[in-house]
Amino acid sequence: SASQPSSQVEPGADRKPSAYETLEVTSEDGITKIMFNRPTKKNAITTQMYHEIMLALKAAGKDDSSVTVLTGNGDYYSSGNDLTNFTDLPPGGPEEKAKNSAILLRDFIDCFIDFPKPLIAVVNGPAVGISVTTLGLCDAVYATDRATFHTPFSHLGQSPEGCSSYTFPKIMGPSKATEMLIFGKKLTAREACAQGLVTEVFPDSTFQKEVWTRLKAYAKLPPNAMRISKEIMRSREKEKLRAINVEECNVLQERWLSDECMNAVMNFLSRKAKL
Amino acid sequence: SASQPSSQVEPGADRKPSAYETLEVTSEDGITKIMFNRPTKKNAITTQMYHEIMLALKAAGKDDSSVTVLTGNGDYYSSGNDLTNFTDLPPGGPEEKAKNSAILLRDFIDCFIDFPKPLIAVVNGPAVGISVTTLGLCDAVYATDRATFHTPFSHLGQSPEGCSSYTFPKIMGPSKATEMLIFGKKLTAREACAQGLVTEVFPDSTFQKEVWTRLKAYAKLPPNAMRISKEIMRSREKEKLRAINVEECNVLQERWLSDECMNAVMNFLSRKAKL
Amino acid sequence: SASQPSSQVEPGADRKPSAYETLEVTSEDGITKIMFNRPTKKNAITTQMYHEIMLALKAAGKDDSSVTVLTGNGDYYSSGNDLTNFTDLPPGGPEEKAKNSAILLRDFIDCFIDFPKPLIAVVNGPAVGISVTTLGLCDAVYATDRATFHTPFSHLGQSPEGCSSYTFPKIMGPSKATEMLIFGKKLTAREACAQGLVTEVFPDSTFQKEVWTRLKAYAKLPPNAMRISKEIMRSREKEKLRAINVEECNVLQERWLSDECMNAVMNFLSRKAKL
Repeated sequence: SASQPSSQVEPGADRKPSAYETLEVTSEDGITKIMFNRPTKKNAITTQMYHEIMLALKAAGKDDSSVTVLTGNGDYYSSGNDLTNFTDLPPGGPEEKAKNSAILLRDFIDCFIDFPKPLIAVVNGPAVGISVTTLGLCDAVYATDRATFHTPFSHLGQSPEGCSSYTFPKIMGPSKATEMLIFGKKLTAREACAQGLVTEVFPDSTFQKEVWTRLKAYAKLPPNAMRISKEIMRSREKEKLRAINVEECNVLQERWLSDECMNAVMNFLSRKAKL
Repeated sequence: SASQPSSQVEPGADRKPSAYETLEVTSEDGITKIMFNRPTKKNAITTQMYHEIMLALKAAGKDDSSVTVLTGNGDYYSSGNDLTNFTDLPPGGPEEKAKNSAILLRDFIDCFIDFPKPLIAVVNGPAVGISVTTLGLCDAVYATDRATFHTPFSHLGQSPEGCSSYTFPKIMGPSKATEMLIFGKKLTAREACAQGLVTEVFPDSTFQKEVWTRLKAYAKLPPNAMRISKEIMRSREKEKLRAINVEECNVLQERWLSDECMNAVMNFLSRKAKL
Repeated sequence: SASQPSSQVEPGADRKPSAYETLEVTSEDGITKIMFNRPTKKNAITTQMYHEIMLALKAAGKDDSSVTVLTGNGDYYSSGNDLTNFTDLPPGGPEEKAKNSAILLRDFIDCFIDFPKPLIAVVNGPAVGISVTTLGLCDAVYATDRATFHTPFSHLGQSPEGCSSYTFPKIMGPSKATEMLIFGKKLTAREACAQGLVTEVFPDSTFQKEVWTRLKAYAKLPPNAMRISKEIMRSREKEKLRAINVEECNVLQERWLSDECMNAVMNFLSRKAKL
């Protein structure tokens, strides 16, 4: 039942850290930590990594931890969608690629919408794109003062995902949400905190120590009370969030095939190749 | 009609202050003031006090004042639900107690949802639990800088009430609401103001003077315009708030019978008894 | 289609600046600028000006600019509804006047609700009444630190319009929205920014330079991406905003005929006549 976290071992729950190639997943002190682990690539999210994060979230939702943490290894939290994903075309060409990508994105975001216990982002450095928009679906967001928050969708000819077209205006009001989502303004950690996207900012020098001390204390609270409190807050919006996710993915599927997007991605990749 | 505040004397409207045992209610300068009056108990709310607040709110809604104020006598605004309420078991035992408490809570919160004129909280000191969550249903909240805001629901094995599972994420975004409602973080007055729960904070030394000067000015504004402006803002959400109230009370009714809650309350009361 | 801004010339799109008597409308660098142009009257909005703003917005929505800007000429952004509008009675008397005014207001606000591309307010000075409430329907709001934000509806026996009874509580939480909309508190630019109504505040001395530099950069972003991103955020709320607009206008139509409102407007105009 909803009030009793299952203690049975689910498929995936007993995976060793080494079971993931792009993540490091550990569980300790009532906390399951899912760490993005492509530090040399700024933790950019490849297709494989999307699948591994989904697997890890599903396992964490069912294990006996009280809270789940997302964080990044290295200097970045995550630079977002790995744009080389765009270059790996299936037999059906760009149309099939766009369709597959929309399905993957939808399923990925649904894992955040449906996550059944407190999900906390420990933002250890800059965050870009989908690693920013998904923060609006997390229950708490702690950030180092070195973190930045950047969603350059228009620059790439794209449009908001991760339910951010709904959560961001709700969190920060439309006039601040527009500047991020439509005009691509990059926020500092303090700005993101003032606007409610981030729960609290810590000096980088003490960030890990302060945050983990706090998280360990939270993880000792009665777990059923926490699950049920989250459920009562989230369940009311779940249907709406799922519909918005579908809508955003449909719009993006078209966007990915537009000239604006294709040109922008091409420019990005060719600039990168020249470096 | 909605646009004409009734001037007829309603039952309860002519109660003398002495008609209440746990409150002091006065009416002056267009302002009805409902003051929690158990200062030696930090204005903890007993079953009797819940009933008296409901009576006082119903009377104030119908009297000829323009605005209504909630405040506390002494150092505290209110320490919230008096946990000794849990010890007074009816013949039907804990199940009947939980059922009765859920009905009382639902009716109490409905009085806030339905209140027909500006309802202003003058938070003269620390606020805990239900005295915090009901602020989300008030129209303005003025606080001394000595006030704190604390909702330790998880610590007590409980879950949010007073529609806070809806109003708090709406007011401050989910990431700040979670820290209060799920992790039980205590906010200072300045933090609560930055997050929109509090309208304005005043130095404790000038708090009463500044706030009451302002309230007296507000109370001189055209009363029908104020009622109708509140109505247009509230009416749209009333059905939703009532449904959320019912849902929260149902969840709490189960929570109160859980081991997590019973153990937490027992620990609290036995610690208190040892002091 | 929604994703292809029409490049055909629409009626009104080729109007010369001189085609408007109360506005100056120019288009340059991908930006259509609609400037309120009654500086000696603090850009108070007359019946004629309401109609011209609607025409200008409809034309700008269809021209080939990427973003549209609203701003004021002179010291004020706009002092809001020109109260002399109330004195120009049609044959049907106050009832007909109130009815016509409600229709005009409804149509005016619908132009903001339906505007199809980023709509940015450049608030060059104090804003009052409807020039404040409509900011909640803009996509970004840049303000000089000289600007103030004032909605003295209760003082005039009136009630909120421009969907502010919905957008303001959503943007700043009910306790701050009430202080503006019901108690008529005037906000500074910094306060309005802290509460999310304003996107960013600039020193008056560099305001125009900084804002227009930024706007010109934004106007170079892919226009379809921006339109579609706005559409995905706005479309979801459009039906609700339209219903709220109708409701607010209906309430105001009654308010305008109330003693509270008639007395307040009469006092205002007679005080003004004595100056």
